[in-house]
Amino acid sequence: MAAPFMNEDFLLDTETARRLYHDYAEALPIIDYHCHVSPKEIWEDRRFGTITDAWLEADHYKWRAIRSNGAAEEKVTGSASAREKFDAFAAMLEKAMGNPLYHWTHLELKRYFGYDGCLSSKTADEVWNLCNAKLKEPGMGVRGLIEQSGVEVVCTTDDPADSLEYHEKLQKDQSFAVRVLPAWRPDKAVHLNADGFTGYIAALGEAAGMEIDSFDRLLGALSRRMDFFAGMGCRASDHSLGYAFYRPTGKETADGIFQKALRGEDLTLEEIEGYQTELLLFLGREYGRRDWVMQLHLGPVRNASRRVFQSVGPDAGCDCMGPALDSRPLAAFLDSLDGDGLLPKTILYSLNPNDNALLGSLIGCFQHSDGSRPAVPGKMQQGSAWWFNDTLEGMREQLRTLASTSLLGNFVGMLTDSRSFLSYTRHEYFRRILCGLLGRWVQEGLVPADYDLLGGLVSDVSYYNAKRYFGF
Amino acid sequence: MAAPFMNEDFLLDTETARRLYHDYAEALPIIDYHCHVSPKEIWEDRRFGTITDAWLEADHYKWRAIRSNGAAEEKVTGSASAREKFDAFAAMLEKAMGNPLYHWTHLELKRYFGYDGCLSSKTADEVWNLCNAKLKEPGMGVRGLIEQSGVEVVCTTDDPADSLEYHEKLQKDQSFAVRVLPAWRPDKAVHLNADGFTGYIAALGEAAGMEIDSFDRLLGALSRRMDFFAGMGCRASDHSLGYAFYRPTGKETADGIFQKALRGEDLTLEEIEGYQTELLLFLGREYGRRDWVMQLHLGPVRNASRRVFQSVGPDAGCDCMGPALDSRPLAAFLDSLDGDGLLPKTILYSLNPNDNALLGSLIGCFQHSDGSRPAVPGKMQQGSAWWFNDTLEGMREQLRTLASTSLLGNFVGMLTDSRSFLSYTRHEYFRRILCGLLGRWVQEGLVPADYDLLGGLVSDVSYYNAKRYFGF
Amino acid sequence: MAAPFMNEDFLLDTETARRLYHDYAEALPIIDYHCHVSPKEIWEDRRFGTITDAWLEADHYKWRAIRSNGAAEEKVTGSASAREKFDAFAAMLEKAMGNPLYHWTHLELKRYFGYDGCLSSKTADEVWNLCNAKLKEPGMGVRGLIEQSGVEVVCTTDDPADSLEYHEKLQKDQSFAVRVLPAWRPDKAVHLNADGFTGYIAALGEAAGMEIDSFDRLLGALSRRMDFFAGMGCRASDHSLGYAFYRPTGKETADGIFQKALRGEDLTLEEIEGYQTELLLFLGREYGRRDWVMQLHLGPVRNASRRVFQSVGPDAGCDCMGPALDSRPLAAFLDSLDGDGLLPKTILYSLNPNDNALLGSLIGCFQHSDGSRPAVPGKMQQGSAWWFNDTLEGMREQLRTLASTSLLGNFVGMLTDSRSFLSYTRHEYFRRILCGLLGRWVQEGLVPADYDLLGGLVSDVSYYNAKRYFGF
Repeated sequence: MAAPFMNEDFLLDTETARRLYHDYAEALPIIDYHCHVSPKEIWEDRRFGTITDAWLEADHYKWRAIRSNGAAEEKVTGSASAREKFDAFAAMLEKAMGNPLYHWTHLELKRYFGYDGCLSSKTADEVWNLCNAKLKEPGMGVRGLIEQSGVEVVCTTDDPADSLEYHEKLQKDQSFAVRVLPAWRPDKAVHLNADGFTGYIAALGEAAGMEIDSFDRLLGALSRRMDFFAGMGCRASDHSLGYAFYRPTGKETADGIFQKALRGEDLTLEEIEGYQTELLLFLGREYGRRDWVMQLHLGPVRNASRRVFQSVGPDAGCDCMGPALDSRPLAAFLDSLDGDGLLPKTILYSLNPNDNALLGSLIGCFQHSDGSRPAVPGKMQQGSAWWFNDTLEGMREQLRTLASTSLLGNFVGMLTDSRSFLSYTRHEYFRRILCGLLGRWVQEGLVPADYDLLGGLVSDVSYYNAKRYFGF
Repeated sequence: MAAPFMNEDFLLDTETARRLYHDYAEALPIIDYHCHVSPKEIWEDRRFGTITDAWLEADHYKWRAIRSNGAAEEKVTGSASAREKFDAFAAMLEKAMGNPLYHWTHLELKRYFGYDGCLSSKTADEVWNLCNAKLKEPGMGVRGLIEQSGVEVVCTTDDPADSLEYHEKLQKDQSFAVRVLPAWRPDKAVHLNADGFTGYIAALGEAAGMEIDSFDRLLGALSRRMDFFAGMGCRASDHSLGYAFYRPTGKETADGIFQKALRGEDLTLEEIEGYQTELLLFLGREYGRRDWVMQLHLGPVRNASRRVFQSVGPDAGCDCMGPALDSRPLAAFLDSLDGDGLLPKTILYSLNPNDNALLGSLIGCFQHSDGSRPAVPGKMQQGSAWWFNDTLEGMREQLRTLASTSLLGNFVGMLTDSRSFLSYTRHEYFRRILCGLLGRWVQEGLVPADYDLLGGLVSDVSYYNAKRYFGF
Repeated sequence: MAAPFMNEDFLLDTETARRLYHDYAEALPIIDYHCHVSPKEIWEDRRFGTITDAWLEADHYKWRAIRSNGAAEEKVTGSASAREKFDAFAAMLEKAMGNPLYHWTHLELKRYFGYDGCLSSKTADEVWNLCNAKLKEPGMGVRGLIEQSGVEVVCTTDDPADSLEYHEKLQKDQSFAVRVLPAWRPDKAVHLNADGFTGYIAALGEAAGMEIDSFDRLLGALSRRMDFFAGMGCRASDHSLGYAFYRPTGKETADGIFQKALRGEDLTLEEIEGYQTELLLFLGREYGRRDWVMQLHLGPVRNASRRVFQSVGPDAGCDCMGPALDSRPLAAFLDSLDGDGLLPKTILYSLNPNDNALLGSLIGCFQHSDGSRPAVPGKMQQGSAWWFNDTLEGMREQLRTLASTSLLGNFVGMLTDSRSFLSYTRHEYFRRILCGLLGRWVQEGLVPADYDLLGGLVSDVSYYNAKRYFGF
């Protein structure tokens, strides 16, 4: 008999899975250790006028799907009305079976709006009215959404030059119990070939209270900002890198390249990689010293469509996967930090799902502990299925590969990586998938039906591992 | 209880799958929008003397399998008798469980010959006699095979220099209702480093009625031939490319390289890629102008065995997969066409199954429509599982990945890519796999049991999407 | 209802699977055609003082897992007591559900120690006592372990300079019926850029009874040693190569590079690849002439952690997967041997699981037989899932891919690749997975329930194919 569509036992197709989810995973708080929500909107407790504002204002994942259904750009990012955009979304969703948007959307409709039907062109009207009415209710502002989702910690994504003023305000606000912490993302300092680099360096210098006219002073300014971030509770850094490279050049050469970039001169690929390697080595060691977690998000090809980039901007849904990673430069980079005794706790994410096994095998090379520092179980992590892989099959595959190449029991688990305050249900999705997978293993006699062991693993991966790993 | 071997519910292991297949997919016509059958054989309504002629005369897929079973080349492409070759095929098939040949062969035996047993050395005699007798019956010529398969449109694969005389004859022949259309495959003009390039250019010039002594005149001749193909009902182009590259050089440089090639001089890889990039950019824009579909078949390594190439020739079963694609040059190529507003409807195929997700993410970057032309849902397509991937698992995986990275509901679906008139059962195979997949999704509660939605999707992917997309 | 944990029907979830395993596969002898056990320990019939000696002395697979659980190096490869190390292993195992270690460990506990429980921190005491007591019993020395496992042939891994004295002693020893044969692994002669190359060449010269002062004399010395190995029953060679390359330079150039290496001069990558290509071409042809099997193990990145390499050495659990292979140089290498009519029987292994389909397609290009030699069914093989892929999912995937791109019925099947005398249960694991897979195919109606055919295939892949292929 077919299972009902997404009922309370969604994805829990064995007795074990149901027990593990409902008895262990379901009630645990959420630690969302990497996302892109706006601290300002949390501070202001923003409210959404329509479901279009909440869903379609910034979510380029949805934009690209709507475009794939043949909708004109006007109804995606253009001047069409909120209702027209919503209708384009609903029409797309009919074609999207098997796409994570199908589950995400319906999970959000169920949990936040109490809607148990299916969104399609036929039901667009009723969903539009229901959601917009519901959004007017108390507890449906940003803070309420976070609180009702059971979130304990949110780590945003922040530039070193950012004043963190909203983090500061939030931390002083007794009325909001959720911890909102900054995370350090110095992409603009790393990508010296991007437009606006010189202006950025000036802004960074201003934030750090010093002029930055050399590579050395850049490192100094970044150190000052790391001190400031640390004071604001930062426990994690994050980098977006298109591919893996390793080209150490020494600081002096890096300084020459930095000077060229400041003068606006063209740089060779060799120079770009040389500068970036030196800067990443410096930062990696700093993270090690500060016991911060280093996150590397590897592999996207960004802004593939110039037309959309020019008319809409970056993060417009026109990014794609790059080719599979080369483990050798990545291993050399980690080894360099490790040789200095300063390899930080590290989470490696790749956008290409073919890298799952490779990353699982790579992290296993750097787990050793010489006893000079307290050991960290699972010091090196393979990140949860990311972006295009953040799907039912993608998460299952990441869990299976991680389990077979590393230790599933030490996995720090899920994060939303989202710009939306309605996406905490992805933690639920992940937990159901995890419990479903373990349930099948028990079903097939692959693991013992030992609920202490299994329940402990589920609880750790859902919540406790992240809490311990980041030190929240 | 085990399911019977390949009965009427083959691959339909849920109630939903059976309903979707038998109520929606089964009776729909076939649009075979890419294949390698001979229009001449259709025109002549060729008949096959033995099943060896029908199965083993040109199917290098089968050749390589027979070789893998240790058969001497004589029994593969050599002078052995038709019966000896058939026996070598039957002996191989015993070892081939899990290989698509096992299913293809038995589907063909069932549908065209009414044989319900299993082919093996033991049954070779009875199958040989049955098939050969059946091949003598009316309706078992090429036209009869196509008609009884429910084919509505066949797109062959044709060289720009081809006269298309058999297409013309077929189109004038009122007695044959199936539309047989040419498709444009200008590989010989693109691969300027292949043997015989100079001779080919002369032949192309003759076909176009003009001398080709420059890159510019090459483009002119190709344009004339495109006009001619368009007049013959051509709606699709096709390119075979070993890997993705993008090296625009400008027309002047391309002309110099073209002249070198005409003089028979050696070319560097850079020159080859430069010429090919310029030619592909020209052709891509032309396809865009003409509203043709551009198909790119990427990734084969051809003629890996020189011994077999020298003794048997190309397409002899000695090709293999190249490494996974780099999305960056492919994205740059598509972006260049898109920047000119001339990106045609495009289908991307890769021979390496690791590219499924990468292509799914790539096509999503170029789906936008600025409203200046009628929108095409699913303008950019990831092609159906191709060649070595055209298997049960390969097709399932392509469907799952496509669904998760794009919109399954807009997929243009299956094609045979075959040289055989008995291979239309692959459309049946595909439709069963599609319905089986959706059935499991319903079974697991992943999608609603909404038969309007599901049946519509099945009908679209099986037939209507291709009809609309190509404009048949 | 959930299946009991790893009972007698472990992995056999259909009636067909149970029948195939228990009636066909279970009782067949083991041919372990590639492993890393010590012939000296077999000759000496080594006994293990504790389970730590048997399990944790040399198994870098386990080391890396224990490190991943945060254990200090002292408890992995350091000076901690045997019991402390065992406890660190038991604590790790609790986190390792889904990891092959979980199954391997419990299979070994069941088969060799009669323990039916689960190893964890809680049961560490009882397992420690039971195993150590059991290890004192007769028949629990190295020879007894091999014999009780039903092993018929063991091929070790041996350097050309090795005297093979323990092989000789074992072959003369009437009291031990298992055939222990050497396999030829000339890695030290190939990797001319490794430390100690000059010393190695001297040692090889001594073993061959000739001075090696030129590339030509190197080939001569290797030939002599191949004659010696052949006399000792060697049937297989083996190479470990980081990635695929093909850069033929001719013997004269190779000689110049060899001379540079002997003088300790630095070599370019081009030189290293040039020398290695020439040497591998020579060796490949020799294998062809001698009817030896050529095994290529491709893709590892070794000793990624310098810290562990310096403190523990190579094979310390700090290796990882390299990027996916390029099929083109590999095809060119095989084609060169094939063009000379000297392509040996070949088994290709890749450490990157993304290469499964690529290798399956590649071997199909070189299966042809011109009738000049007796045909070998499945002459070209894709090796069994290797190292990080030697897991439940990894083996299933290799079998599925192999079946779909080649002929499963001709597969030579499993090997342990192990340093441990307790790992023969991996053959059981493999056979269960094979029978489980076929059982599911029958269950789903994908193959006929023909037990002659299926039982024959299972017997061939489990035992007979390897026996015939290697000529044991």
